[in-house]
Amino acid sequence: MRQLYHLPISPASRKARLVLAEKNLAFELVEERDWERRHEFLALNPAGEVPVLIEEDGTVVSGGMPIAEFLEEIEPSPRLLPETPADRAEARRLVDWFDRKFAAEVSDGLIFEKVTRRFLSAAEGGGAPDMAIVRAALHNLRYHLDYICYLMEDRRWLAGESMTLADVTAAAHLSCLDYVGDVPWGQYVGAKDWYVRIKSRPGFRPILADHVPGMPPPKLYANLDF
Amino acid sequence: MRQLYHLPISPASRKARLVLAEKNLAFELVEERDWERRHEFLALNPAGEVPVLIEEDGTVVSGGMPIAEFLEEIEPSPRLLPETPADRAEARRLVDWFDRKFAAEVSDGLIFEKVTRRFLSAAEGGGAPDMAIVRAALHNLRYHLDYICYLMEDRRWLAGESMTLADVTAAAHLSCLDYVGDVPWGQYVGAKDWYVRIKSRPGFRPILADHVPGMPPPKLYANLDF
Repeated sequence: MRQLYHLPISPASRKARLVLAEKNLAFELVEERDWERRHEFLALNPAGEVPVLIEEDGTVVSGGMPIAEFLEEIEPSPRLLPETPADRAEARRLVDWFDRKFAAEVSDGLIFEKVTRRFLSAAEGGGAPDMAIVRAALHNLRYHLDYICYLMEDRRWLAGESMTLADVTAAAHLSCLDYVGDVPWGQYVGAKDWYVRIKSRPGFRPILADHVPGMPPPKLYANLDF
Repeated sequence: MRQLYHLPISPASRKARLVLAEKNLAFELVEERDWERRHEFLALNPAGEVPVLIEEDGTVVSGGMPIAEFLEEIEPSPRLLPETPADRAEARRLVDWFDRKFAAEVSDGLIFEKVTRRFLSAAEGGGAPDMAIVRAALHNLRYHLDYICYLMEDRRWLAGESMTLADVTAAAHLSCLDYVGDVPWGQYVGAKDWYVRIKSRPGFRPILADHVPGMPPPKLYANLDF
C-alpha cells in the first residue's frame, strides 16, 4: 500500500494526509522523527523532512506541495485546484502564503518551541519553549486570522467558491496550532466558520484523532462545536 | 503589455523573468521596492512581495512559484515541467528545496544583509551587514553546491535529462549570490559546468545586464567564461 512518512504536528504532513483523504486514496502512515536524521530516511529525501510519499510502484515524492500537486495529477477527482489558470494561480498564491509567510511568521516558530523541543536533547536545542518567540508568533497569528476573515467576507472558501489546496493548506497549519491550544477562534468569527466547515469533513477525522505522547490536545481540539 | 513587478536581486523575481524568457513571452519590467509597502502594490499583492505578474486581461498572479505554474499552464511550450507526474514531482521537489531550504539557509539572509539593508533607514533595520549571518550563509552555501555537484554526477540538468523549473529556480537564487560575488564556483566543478550552461541561455542575458545603483556586480558576474 501507498505509504506516507509523516509527523502528527507537521503542517506539510497534514496537507498530504488531507489531500489523500479528500481524494479517497488509501494510505498507511509511518511516523518519522525527522530530527533524528535516520540514514534510510535521508536516502529517501535528502532534505531530511517529512512528508515523503511512497507510491506502490516505488515512486518517491517529497514535500507538502510537490505531494499535493502530484496527487492532483494522478487523481484529478475531486479536484483541489480550480479549472482556469487564473483561478489556480489564486489558490496557489494562498498555498504559498500559508506555506511561506504564515510558516515563517507563525507556525514554524510555535511548533518548534511548543512541540519539537520536547523531543530534543539539551544539546540538540531541547528544553522549555522560548516564550519571546511564542509571543511573537501569537501576535502575528492575529493578522493572519484577520486576513482569513477578510477573504471570507465575499468568498465561500479561501480561494473562491470551491474548496481548494488553499483551504487544505491553511487548515493543515491552523489545526497544528489548534492542537497546542493557541488559536483564539472566538474573536475571529469568519475564520471560525470556515474552520468549522473544513474540520467537519470526513477526511479531517484522523487528524482530530492525533495524539502526541505526553502532550494531549485541549478538549476543544477534536470538538466540531468549539 | 504584460507587466512584471520585480526587484533585480530577488530570486523569485528572477525565476519569473527566466520562465517568461524561456517561453518567449513579451513583458515589461516594473521595479517595486516592496519594503516601502506602497499602498497600490499591497492592493495587488497583500503579501507585499515581488514578483507580481499582471496579464494584459488584468489577471494578477503573485509569487514566484504561482507565476511559474501559471505560465506553464498558459504557455506549455517549451515545457519547463517534465511529462510524467513522477518526473514533475522530482522537479517540484528541487524547486521546493531551493525556494524553502536554500532560501532559509543561504539566500534570504545573504540578500537581506548585503543588498536590502543598503536601501533601508536605520529605523527600518538598514546599515552594515551582520557578518555573523553572512558567514553562516556562506558556510551553508557549500553544502548546497556539493548537492548540485552530486546531482550532476548522473544527470544533465538538476531534475533529469531536460532543463526544468528546478534549474530555473536554482539559477535564480545562485545568480543573485553571484551578483554580490559570493559563489566559490572554482571549487565546485559540476555546479559550475551546470551554471555555465544555464547562464549561456539567451533568456539569461537581461539578468546578466542587471545593475543595482551604487552596487556594481563583480567583473565575472556577466562573464560566460568565469
